Amino acid sequence: MAKEKKLVEAITSMEEDFAQWYTDVVKKAELIDYSSVKGCMIIKPAGYAIWENIQKELDQRFKETGVENVYMPMFIPESLLQKEKDHVEGFAPEVAWVTHGGLSELQERLCVRPTSETLFCDFYKDLIQSYRDLPKLYNQWCSVVRWEKETRPFLRSREFLWQEGHTAHATAEEAEERTIQMLNLYADFCEEVLAMPVIRGQKTEKEKFAGAMATYTIEALMHDGKALQSGTSHNFGDGFAKAFGIQFTDKDNRLKYVYQTSWGMTTRLIGAIIMVHGDDSGLVLPPRIAPVQAMVIPIMQHKEGVLEKAKEICSSLSKVCRVRLDDSDKSPGWKFAEQEMRGIPIRIEVGPKDLENNRCVLVRRDTRQKLEVSLDDAAEEVTRLLEQIQKDMFERAKAHRDAHIWDAHDYEELKEIAGSKPGFIRGMWCGSQDCEDRIKEDLAVTSRCIPFHDKETISDVCVCCGKPAAKLIYWGKAY
Amino acid sequence: MAKEKKLVEAITSMEEDFAQWYTDVVKKAELIDYSSVKGCMIIKPAGYAIWENIQKELDQRFKETGVENVYMPMFIPESLLQKEKDHVEGFAPEVAWVTHGGLSELQERLCVRPTSETLFCDFYKDLIQSYRDLPKLYNQWCSVVRWEKETRPFLRSREFLWQEGHTAHATAEEAEERTIQMLNLYADFCEEVLAMPVIRGQKTEKEKFAGAMATYTIEALMHDGKALQSGTSHNFGDGFAKAFGIQFTDKDNRLKYVYQTSWGMTTRLIGAIIMVHGDDSGLVLPPRIAPVQAMVIPIMQHKEGVLEKAKEICSSLSKVCRVRLDDSDKSPGWKFAEQEMRGIPIRIEVGPKDLENNRCVLVRRDTRQKLEVSLDDAAEEVTRLLEQIQKDMFERAKAHRDAHIWDAHDYEELKEIAGSKPGFIRGMWCGSQDCEDRIKEDLAVTSRCIPFHDKETISDVCVCCGKPAAKLIYWGKAY
Repeated sequence: MAKEKKLVEAITSMEEDFAQWYTDVVKKAELIDYSSVKGCMIIKPAGYAIWENIQKELDQRFKETGVENVYMPMFIPESLLQKEKDHVEGFAPEVAWVTHGGLSELQERLCVRPTSETLFCDFYKDLIQSYRDLPKLYNQWCSVVRWEKETRPFLRSREFLWQEGHTAHATAEEAEERTIQMLNLYADFCEEVLAMPVIRGQKTEKEKFAGAMATYTIEALMHDGKALQSGTSHNFGDGFAKAFGIQFTDKDNRLKYVYQTSWGMTTRLIGAIIMVHGDDSGLVLPPRIAPVQAMVIPIMQHKEGVLEKAKEICSSLSKVCRVRLDDSDKSPGWKFAEQEMRGIPIRIEVGPKDLENNRCVLVRRDTRQKLEVSLDDAAEEVTRLLEQIQKDMFERAKAHRDAHIWDAHDYEELKEIAGSKPGFIRGMWCGSQDCEDRIKEDLAVTSRCIPFHDKETISDVCVCCGKPAAKLIYWGKAY
Repeated sequence: MAKEKKLVEAITSMEEDFAQWYTDVVKKAELIDYSSVKGCMIIKPAGYAIWENIQKELDQRFKETGVENVYMPMFIPESLLQKEKDHVEGFAPEVAWVTHGGLSELQERLCVRPTSETLFCDFYKDLIQSYRDLPKLYNQWCSVVRWEKETRPFLRSREFLWQEGHTAHATAEEAEERTIQMLNLYADFCEEVLAMPVIRGQKTEKEKFAGAMATYTIEALMHDGKALQSGTSHNFGDGFAKAFGIQFTDKDNRLKYVYQTSWGMTTRLIGAIIMVHGDDSGLVLPPRIAPVQAMVIPIMQHKEGVLEKAKEICSSLSKVCRVRLDDSDKSPGWKFAEQEMRGIPIRIEVGPKDLENNRCVLVRRDTRQKLEVSLDDAAEEVTRLLEQIQKDMFERAKAHRDAHIWDAHDYEELKEIAGSKPGFIRGMWCGSQDCEDRIKEDLAVTSRCIPFHDKETISDVCVCCGKPAAKLIYWGKAY
């Protein structure tokens, strides 16, 4: 039983060491394994199934807005990467370079894509000729490589999976609209499907994407009070179009540059799910993203009729949710612990006594609350309970997030909060990068975003320099 | 109208130049575009949507047999690639090497995966300890890189998309069973979904996968009489397990090596669909794989009621098939040609006269046959017709294939057929690689497979050396 033992062994508690707790959960919930390539992870079935659900949900939402999927090469010639100045400066230090193909040295180095703006631009340059060819709304699902020095599973790895959308438009207004539309799509997805509240806002000049005119972001708060940038959407204006020469003949017969956007979400979201919802027993999955939503566990399964009834329940529930039966020869206790570690939203217990009374017991993973229900109502109750859990998990995450937003009115207060209170800090900003740099260097907090919806003015002056300030910023320590 | 013109311009006819016809179709049906990286292609929306349908169908069939999806790193350290001798000899000459990460040179070169046996073995080595951990039935969807010198879209490109399944078993029998099971799954998929008949068989020693004990294959015949290897399934025995030290404690408490398999299908299948079903008007897609199964084209759409009725038809058909409406301002003639080039199985015409008579016209892409149907029966008729087209396309491809299988009883006959008759050549083989080599060098045909189901003995002697021979081989020119 060595294999089972590993699973239900106590993991490090969150309070004691959050980073170690996280590592324990990703390993013991069997989401990933380390590989022989430093900084690259193996995504195991339990982890990949979550990614498949994320893909299915996002892809459908993309397609509803007219987006089409394509696939671009994974290599970028060095000369192509260098075409947009800010972009190459941002990415060149962290790309992997292919120098040899087979036994010969390449004439030109190729980098493994860290992101594909340059490839899409090179493609669009020939594809787009007329206003009739616009807009182009393309997306791809692929892996990308960034040669990071410090890595952590899902949060920062040298290779990760993502989607990257790249659009081209006839007008600046349309590009801006699409940038915001995709950010809102991301935010709704996080809140509705991952039960994860996010703050929508704009990145400062310092924090925006290399080559972008504006970067919009959604920022989520993890259980330890650190922020996680969970999705970004960039408006490039006509910067890339000018660097790559992407022009079209408009209705007025004049040659114009296109306006572009890009937007992406990654396997990092799995890290977010872990850190927003997990507890000291392991993973807690929101029902809408859980690969298995309910696990039927027979009690005293050797007793006559128990296993048959468990199978029957499983089969009838399969019409309303993703349900599995654990009929292995492990003890119920082991099975409970395993199922908790893996974050399965509902456990369904059925034993000899339940048979007699035509009932079963539903146990919520998130609250551990038990509910006896008649077998006749089981399908209905499980459906209702999954919705309830989804809703409660969002409300709980939101309450936790809201309880960890602090206001700082001056530098002393900012310093005190940054040093003692985990969470987001709201503080006014004058707009100068000097203040942003000083706060980052001295207090190790960074500007997360200028929020869209939070327009409160908590003071008239910059939290750093005391000069007049009109912008509210969410500051925080971040992953 | 420059954009439309490009599409309906005559393409090279198959008879005149099959290779050019193929290139014209992939470009003009907008399946791919060339990229700035030599030998790597851009898969455009019309091409990628076919791949998405292939993925959906195959993935579901895999999962029904217990397979789970994972994701492995795209890099393989050089030392890992070298662990299995035959394998590295087969792949090292055609891999791309990463030598630098960011600004520093790597301590060890990494190759971009050409296939992931070595990574899975390295993973399984730690993951598998006991017979309780077996079987492992993992698959991944990803891209792979092979630095080919000559490339063609879909058929042979430096980067391509595929799935690779990798399984580990307690016994040799179970591994063999899985190898055959997956080959049959591939064959059924090709015949049922792609309407493409295949010959199932075993590769010779010379043609088997680098490191495999046995390679099974499905071979399809293209319209020009060349063969295309369309999917392979490999039994590794315990060869990789011994090279990588993948051992488990069996029920009898003894330490044993696992037995492994791998199997893959690629975007090459899109090339097969084109070359099996296409004609001089472009692509012809089997309904089950077609991203758009029916296109509604209004005739004289400015006339009152026409566009409304077309929309109504489209909306009601969307319940039974993947249907679109072309309400652009192009002429019906252009739309017909476009739809033919893209291979959409059914075109639905509706004009003022049809309105009066409460009918529409269905036109089959494969036969161009027209069918007037009452609007009341349209959904039913389209459903029926899609099934009929699927069936007819398979039968037609099978008849073409069967009409291009020739028997060769001696070398003179083999030479004559190889030089004049496109198709598969059946000929007996003594089993010596010398004969296989001679046939390849002299006649430019290779052994495609030793068929499973065709056990006919067409002669007692080898078609090459005249010595006694018991094995029937399908020979052919191949892509």
